[in-house]
Amino acid sequence: MARTLPGADWSIAAAMLQFPGTHDGVPVAELPSAVWRQQLEPVVEAGFSAVEIPTSWISIGDLPDPRVAELRAVLEDAGLEVPGISVVRRSVIHPERGEDNLALAHRTVDAAAALGVPIVCVGLHDELLDAQKQVTWFWTVPGAQRPTDPETYELAVRRYRELAEHASGVGIELSLELYEDTYLGSGKDGVRFLEDIGHPAVGLNPDVGNLVRQQRPIESWQETFALTLPHANYWHIKNYARLEDPSRDLVLTHPTSLELGIINYREMTQAAIAQGFNGAFVVEHYGGDGLSVGASNADYLRSILPARTTRETSETEK
Amino acid sequence: MARTLPGADWSIAAAMLQFPGTHDGVPVAELPSAVWRQQLEPVVEAGFSAVEIPTSWISIGDLPDPRVAELRAVLEDAGLEVPGISVVRRSVIHPERGEDNLALAHRTVDAAAALGVPIVCVGLHDELLDAQKQVTWFWTVPGAQRPTDPETYELAVRRYRELAEHASGVGIELSLELYEDTYLGSGKDGVRFLEDIGHPAVGLNPDVGNLVRQQRPIESWQETFALTLPHANYWHIKNYARLEDPSRDLVLTHPTSLELGIINYREMTQAAIAQGFNGAFVVEHYGGDGLSVGASNADYLRSILPARTTRETSETEK
Amino acid sequence: MARTLPGADWSIAAAMLQFPGTHDGVPVAELPSAVWRQQLEPVVEAGFSAVEIPTSWISIGDLPDPRVAELRAVLEDAGLEVPGISVVRRSVIHPERGEDNLALAHRTVDAAAALGVPIVCVGLHDELLDAQKQVTWFWTVPGAQRPTDPETYELAVRRYRELAEHASGVGIELSLELYEDTYLGSGKDGVRFLEDIGHPAVGLNPDVGNLVRQQRPIESWQETFALTLPHANYWHIKNYARLEDPSRDLVLTHPTSLELGIINYREMTQAAIAQGFNGAFVVEHYGGDGLSVGASNADYLRSILPARTTRETSETEK
Repeated sequence: MARTLPGADWSIAAAMLQFPGTHDGVPVAELPSAVWRQQLEPVVEAGFSAVEIPTSWISIGDLPDPRVAELRAVLEDAGLEVPGISVVRRSVIHPERGEDNLALAHRTVDAAAALGVPIVCVGLHDELLDAQKQVTWFWTVPGAQRPTDPETYELAVRRYRELAEHASGVGIELSLELYEDTYLGSGKDGVRFLEDIGHPAVGLNPDVGNLVRQQRPIESWQETFALTLPHANYWHIKNYARLEDPSRDLVLTHPTSLELGIINYREMTQAAIAQGFNGAFVVEHYGGDGLSVGASNADYLRSILPARTTRETSETEK
Repeated sequence: MARTLPGADWSIAAAMLQFPGTHDGVPVAELPSAVWRQQLEPVVEAGFSAVEIPTSWISIGDLPDPRVAELRAVLEDAGLEVPGISVVRRSVIHPERGEDNLALAHRTVDAAAALGVPIVCVGLHDELLDAQKQVTWFWTVPGAQRPTDPETYELAVRRYRELAEHASGVGIELSLELYEDTYLGSGKDGVRFLEDIGHPAVGLNPDVGNLVRQQRPIESWQETFALTLPHANYWHIKNYARLEDPSRDLVLTHPTSLELGIINYREMTQAAIAQGFNGAFVVEHYGGDGLSVGASNADYLRSILPARTTRETSETEK
Repeated sequence: MARTLPGADWSIAAAMLQFPGTHDGVPVAELPSAVWRQQLEPVVEAGFSAVEIPTSWISIGDLPDPRVAELRAVLEDAGLEVPGISVVRRSVIHPERGEDNLALAHRTVDAAAALGVPIVCVGLHDELLDAQKQVTWFWTVPGAQRPTDPETYELAVRRYRELAEHASGVGIELSLELYEDTYLGSGKDGVRFLEDIGHPAVGLNPDVGNLVRQQRPIESWQETFALTLPHANYWHIKNYARLEDPSRDLVLTHPTSLELGIINYREMTQAAIAQGFNGAFVVEHYGGDGLSVGASNADYLRSILPARTTRETSETEK
């Protein structure tokens, strides 16, 4: 499809959504680095030169320093840049694990800095509920709902501000992921939450795929992007089909490719770049073979992105 | 996907469905031609050498002559052929705007001739209703219904016959677009309407995508094509997924690529060509990035179309 | 999408699902071989070097010997290998036609051997019911249900064992296709049925697409594959989108590409090969242009399959 590729110099990272955290019962983090290298080979073969490391694969904040060095060597050997670390489903306001999750986030910030990774992506969603694990698509049944008391909201603001201050001190940024039923559950809420944090080392991850897949009425994706793109510093990018029968209040969604879904990413990436976005894309895809769809999505992005402008400082990226 | 491309010499035009009619509040028609050129650049970069000009982007019938010349120069510079002009959502039997729309259609015929465009595509559908504009897919709620009185039907026949006579006089043809809930709302109705007009300068645009996306029982697409292909002189081509639960009388549809949708376009294009179709294809796609899907669809068409036979006169094309 | 193609040496055959059994009212089997060659040309042009011959196109068991030789010549001329013959919708336990169907299966085994084809694929599904023929997708209304009496089950076991013995004697194998509402209607049932037959010349065709498209609760595809892959000797491979609203007990499915459907074929093909699968893939697709989707699916498979290991004997393949 791609004919000319001015978009070739953007960082487009594979997601590792389909990669399990254990291998024959052993946590991946404890395996020899040769196995890490082997597990990354399909990412390389699929054509990627960048990958996001999620804590669900290897929690780099929990790795001893020598193993971080090993991971760095493996990534270099594979020719994979890491534009971001994602702290997956570890809410800093979880009623029981909130403090542990916050501590992990802090350790991850340090490890990211040690690994030379500029972004740590965090969010207020936590483990799926049992009911969500028992269905084909977890977003088709209700998940955990955000706390409505002002104290917890303030706690989230404070903890992220504190994390941002830490990140800023070691030269990296946070990106807050939009996610249903959290304080980041719409463009409007996300921007308000970001502004309440009010720290220059925090931006948004406009992962609008998380919102358009909800099988109920939603903020229009055009509106969500209009509100959030000015604040975007990192981008989990994915798309969905959305089938509706208004006469029955029925909405059904399904993961599809960036090109075939309802969001017009040609338009949204142009709008983002016009507003200064210069971050990395992470091509996520739920459903079958997420890595192959991700590779097709990367090809698609390269076919529509303009040439990337070099920026002097990361501050200008927001 | 394409390996050998005997289909390379067919005219496969981009649609401009996703192109707005204004730019920063100014009608595109009033912008400098350098902006027109700029807006067409993505079409060129997506690999197209042809484009359909819709009145929703620039209404060429309303352009002063010098600006038509400018447009021609822009198109030449971009290397874009224009196989057809589409008069979009301007029904010649609209209760209030019917006469204005007819006048516009006449002006468009003249402008098309001046621009060297062989087809003007028209239809009996008009502006979307408010309820249609408020949903994700406009075809999921009822739109305007065709008038049932014989007088209005006769008026439509007469106005199109008169328009055809005009078109014929300046060397071009009309193509009537199949569209739900109009006199062109099925293969059967479309052919009857065409025959009632009874003019050699009118053919059909078998835009069966408009019909298979209806979320209710439909004429089978095989039947619609069997009836309309013998009369086709221009082709808006698009495809849909169609999900059904007969036990609930439930139908949901979603735009998808030509290759993945329910209509077998390998078979339908062969049937069309066997019956003498030699017109242009316009690759339409609602939903996200219609231009990119259009480019993929153009690749698909080139991979399945046989070599085009050169025709001596346009009359033999029908 | 494919960048390096270690998977190039696998046998990936086109399906002929969309090919009719008659041409201008004449059975394809009775047409001159030049017409056969012509009908196969699109398969070649779509990039295939292998094709499955289904009885619904030409029933090779009913061809006179000289015509089998003609067919062989046509296939050689087209450069098409035939890794399998499929006996389509001819259940050997059909209440009226069971014996005839069994006789056909036996004749097909002999013809396959004569044609040098290593696999005959059979199944317990028969003609679609009228209600199934009247809907868009036949699997959205109930089809014939499997007999529940032990005698018929035993009859099926006996007839397949007898057919396997015959196949084994002429150097070929049978592959039993998973299919809803038959004794092969789930991984669990399929394996039990295979073990009850208990013959080394019979394996399974893990056509899990037939099962995931059911619009009701299903055995998870991961489970179906875990059970059946160890016994797979041939593979009809296809994928589906599956949309669900658990609150309404609603499931809708639609054919899609191998890459975009819910089954992760990257993972499943690796699991199969790790367990010794060395058979052929047949890329099936219902819906529009199955041949083009099949060609895209073949490209996808080649992009994810590892290099094929050469096996000494067919026995080691199971």
